[in-house]
Amino acid sequence: QELRCQCIQTHSDLISPKFIKHVQLIPEGVHCSRKEIIVTLEDGKLICLDPNAEWVMIIIKKIINSAPN
Amino acid sequence: QELRCQCIQTHSDLISPKFIKHVQLIPEGVHCSRKEIIVTLEDGKLICLDPNAEWVMIIIKKIINSAPN
Repeated sequence: QELRCQCIQTHSDLISPKFIKHVQLIPEGVHCSRKEIIVTLEDGKLICLDPNAEWVMIIIKKIINSAPN
Repeated sequence: QELRCQCIQTHSDLISPKFIKHVQLIPEGVHCSRKEIIVTLEDGKLICLDPNAEWVMIIIKKIINSAPN
């Protein structure tokens, strides 16, 4: 019995990392049987990304590997 | 002038994805001049991970690429 997933649909258009304020990766768990990726944009908007979309992984790598740090 | 970073120190020991409730990726921005990775553990504890540590990227990939979805 699926308790509660936060994402109702996922955003399919490409988003530039520069508009992303932060990214939440939520592994599947007791509360939801699928993993979810929730992005907060600079304007405060919350959107869900498809964990299976290749460009999503690319964006996450860009955020983590971006210089400087 | 660095406004406010959330992480004071980073956790260096390896953490298994199964103890991770969710992961926050915060790119550097106006509020903080370095990127931060904040993990919420199943027990509710919040810890910061080092964005430059290789194992951190491996864990993030595991979370995203883990079946089923």
